[in-house]
Amino acid sequence: MNARAAGDVGDAIRAIAIACRDAGAAVAALSTSTKRSVLESMARSLEAHADTILAANARDVDAATARGQTAALIDRLRLDAPRLAAVAAGMRAVAQQADPVGRITHRETRANGLDIERVRIPLGLVVMIYEARPNVTADAAALCFHSGNAVLLRGGSEAFESNRAIAAALRAALVEHGLPAGAITLMEDLSREAMIAVLQLTDIVDLAIPRGGEGLIRFVAEHARVPVIKHYRGVCHLYVDAQADPDVALRLLIDGKTTRPAVCNALETLLVHADVAATFLPRAAHALRQRGVELRGCRRSRELVAGMTAATDADYAAEFLDLIIAVRIVADADEAMEHIRRFGSDHTEVIATRDDSVAQRFVQSLRCAVVMVNASSRFSDGGELGLGAEIGISTTRLHAYGPMGSESLTIERYVVRGTGQTRHGTPSID
Amino acid sequence: MNARAAGDVGDAIRAIAIACRDAGAAVAALSTSTKRSVLESMARSLEAHADTILAANARDVDAATARGQTAALIDRLRLDAPRLAAVAAGMRAVAQQADPVGRITHRETRANGLDIERVRIPLGLVVMIYEARPNVTADAAALCFHSGNAVLLRGGSEAFESNRAIAAALRAALVEHGLPAGAITLMEDLSREAMIAVLQLTDIVDLAIPRGGEGLIRFVAEHARVPVIKHYRGVCHLYVDAQADPDVALRLLIDGKTTRPAVCNALETLLVHADVAATFLPRAAHALRQRGVELRGCRRSRELVAGMTAATDADYAAEFLDLIIAVRIVADADEAMEHIRRFGSDHTEVIATRDDSVAQRFVQSLRCAVVMVNASSRFSDGGELGLGAEIGISTTRLHAYGPMGSESLTIERYVVRGTGQTRHGTPSID
Repeated sequence: MNARAAGDVGDAIRAIAIACRDAGAAVAALSTSTKRSVLESMARSLEAHADTILAANARDVDAATARGQTAALIDRLRLDAPRLAAVAAGMRAVAQQADPVGRITHRETRANGLDIERVRIPLGLVVMIYEARPNVTADAAALCFHSGNAVLLRGGSEAFESNRAIAAALRAALVEHGLPAGAITLMEDLSREAMIAVLQLTDIVDLAIPRGGEGLIRFVAEHARVPVIKHYRGVCHLYVDAQADPDVALRLLIDGKTTRPAVCNALETLLVHADVAATFLPRAAHALRQRGVELRGCRRSRELVAGMTAATDADYAAEFLDLIIAVRIVADADEAMEHIRRFGSDHTEVIATRDDSVAQRFVQSLRCAVVMVNASSRFSDGGELGLGAEIGISTTRLHAYGPMGSESLTIERYVVRGTGQTRHGTPSID
Repeated sequence: MNARAAGDVGDAIRAIAIACRDAGAAVAALSTSTKRSVLESMARSLEAHADTILAANARDVDAATARGQTAALIDRLRLDAPRLAAVAAGMRAVAQQADPVGRITHRETRANGLDIERVRIPLGLVVMIYEARPNVTADAAALCFHSGNAVLLRGGSEAFESNRAIAAALRAALVEHGLPAGAITLMEDLSREAMIAVLQLTDIVDLAIPRGGEGLIRFVAEHARVPVIKHYRGVCHLYVDAQADPDVALRLLIDGKTTRPAVCNALETLLVHADVAATFLPRAAHALRQRGVELRGCRRSRELVAGMTAATDADYAAEFLDLIIAVRIVADADEAMEHIRRFGSDHTEVIATRDDSVAQRFVQSLRCAVVMVNASSRFSDGGELGLGAEIGISTTRLHAYGPMGSESLTIERYVVRGTGQTRHGTPSID
C-alpha cells in the first residue's frame, strides 16, 4: 500500500470513528430503564435473526474449514442454537446489572459551602479488537451499551460474516428504539492499515481493548497511541502450603488445570511446600495423569514422581494453554511468592492453606489482579465474580485490574455546585 | 549519541527504575500510622534542611537568571522560607488524608460461598516528569509515598540543585525509619535519551505523569509506551445563562480570569446568552479591563463593547495563560455547549444560572472532568476539592479524570476467599 492509499484508509476510518462516537452521545444520555429495554430488544433481535446469524456463521465455518484452520479455531468460531441462546441470555444478564452511569461515588460539602460529587460517566468511544469468537461482538456491544458508550468492533476476518449478521441484529434493536445505529459499529475494513489507523485516533478513541492471542495483543500495544487495557498471558500458579487441606488443594489443582486448559485462568504451574511434597505430589501426579496431563518438574519433584520431564525456565514462564503443568517444590511461602514474582503474569494466583496468616501474607505480598485463597483460579471471570459479564481481563495496572464489567467502562468525574463561591475572596464588581 | 551510548543510557535507567520499584515493595506494605509518621518526618526533614535547600535553590535561580530565563520561569523556580514552609505543610496535609491502600470498596458473598472483596493496592512505580517547580518534588513524593508507591522523579534541569537537596531531605527521613531510600529516586541523567528510556520500561513502570507545558506533555505522549495520564491544556469556559445571577456571574468571571491567569483552571473564554448580553457584557468588559484584561470578541459582542478586537477560531481554541479572554454571544445553552464541545479541552467548564434544569443539562451533556455550577473554575484543584493535594489533573478519560490525589495512585484488585470451591463441580480425587 502506498502512502496515498494509507492516507485514504486513515480518512475513512477517522470518519467512521467520529460517526460512532457521535452516535454514542445518545446512548450516554439514556436512563437505566431505557437501556434495559433496549438490551432486551437486542436479545430478542438476536433470537429473531437466529437463522440468518447461524447461516452466516456456517459460511464462516465452511470457509475456515476449507482454509484448513485448526479445530480449536473452528470451535471458537462456531455458533449453534444453544450458543446463540447463551449469548442472548448474557445480554439479558447485563441488562439486569446495576447501571454504573450516574452513580455518585462520593459526596461532600466543603467548609465554603461547595457541594462536591464524584459521578460516573461513560468513557465515550471504546474500540474492541478481537479474533475468532463471534459472541464477543454481542458481549462487547452489550457491555458498552449498558455503560453508555459507543463501541467500534473490529473482529477477526474468520468471523466476519457472523459478526456482520450479529451487529445487524443489534443495530436493528437500536433503530427500533429511535437510537442511532452507529453507536454499535462493526469495522468492515479488516486490513492492518485500518487497525493501525483506529489505534492512533487519540482525539476520538477513549480506550482500546484487545482480546485474543498474545500476537494480536502485542500488535495492538505496539501500534496504539490511544489508551489500551490488556492482558498478555495468564500464567496462574497454585501454591500448596504446608498447612493446606490436601483434598482441597487437589480439587483446586484438577479444576484449575484440567476443566478448560485453553483459557487464561487455567493453572500453568504447581508450587508445593517441601514439607508436604512427599505425600501430596505423587497423589497429584496420579490424578493429573489420569486426566491426560503431562508434568514437567524440578529436580526434587522428579525424585518423588517417576517419569516427569525436567522443567526449564521457559516452562515456568509458559502459558501452556494445554494439558501440561510445570511443577516445583519450594521451601516455604516466601520461595513460592518469589517464584510467582519472577514468572507470574499478574493475572490470578491461588494459595491452598488453612493458615490464615500465611494466606494473608500471600494476598498482601503479591500484586496480581486476582488472588484466590482456597478457591479455584477458574473463578477469575467477570460472571463468576459478580460482574454479570466481562469485556476482558486487565493486567494493565491502571483504570481496571482483573475482570472488567460495565463499571470498568465508566470513569468518575467531578460535579461541583455552589452559590457564587470564588477562590480569592469576593471581588468588588462595581 | 550513537547506538551503543543510547544502549548504555537505557541499561543504566533500567537498573535505576528496577531498584526504585523494588524499594517500593517496603512502602506498599506500611501501615497507615507508619506512613503518617514517615510523612511527618519528611516534613521535619525539609524544615531541618531548609538552609541547604534554599542555598541550592539560590544557585538554580542564579544560573537561570544568568541564562536569561523569563521572570515567570524564575518565579516558578524560586523557593523561599514561606514557600518551603507551605511545602512541608502540604506533606502534613497529605499525611492526614485517608489511606487509600487496603480500602475495601466492594464486598459480597456469592451463592457458592465465595467471599469476594475489591481492595485498593498501590500502582507500583510512578514516574513523575515535570519542569521548573521544585515543590513538585516534595508534593509528588508525598502523594506517591502515602499511596504506597515508589516514585521516580525527573524534574527540569533548571531546578536540579533544588530537587537534589529536597530529595536528599526526604530520603533521609526514609532511612531514619529503616526504609529503603530508593523508594524516592531523583533521576540525575536529565538527557532526552534517559527520559525516552524510562518512558519505554513497560515491564517496570506502571504510570508516567507529565506535568508542565504542552511541549513537555506532547514529548512524553509521543515517546511513552508505558501508560500516561496527562492534560494538555485547560481551555475553561464560563457560560452566563439567561437565568444567571449577574453578580454571581461577574464574580466567577473575575475570579476565574484575573486571580491567577497562568494556571490551567483559569478561564479562557466567556460565553454569554444573547438575552442578557446587552446588560451583562458591557459591565463585564468594564470590570475585566479595570484589571488589565484584553477582550477578543465575536461580531455581536463587539457591537456591545467598543474597542474589542475580533476573536478568531485560534483565540477560541487558545489557552492564553495570560490576561486575555475570548468572548462570544450564544443563542442559548445548546449553542454554548456546542462551542465548548468544539473548543474545550475536557478540563473544567462553568455555568452561571439559577435555572436548575439548564444546569442539569449542562452537567449531563458535557464530558469534561470537572463541571462547576455557580462556582469558580479556580476550585478545580485537588486541595480545593478535598483531596489534600494533587499530583496532577487528568483529562485522559481513563483511570482518573480531573484532579488526582492519593486514591488515583492506587488500583482495585480482587481478593477471593473460599473453602475449596471449584468451578466445575467436585472432581473425584481418588
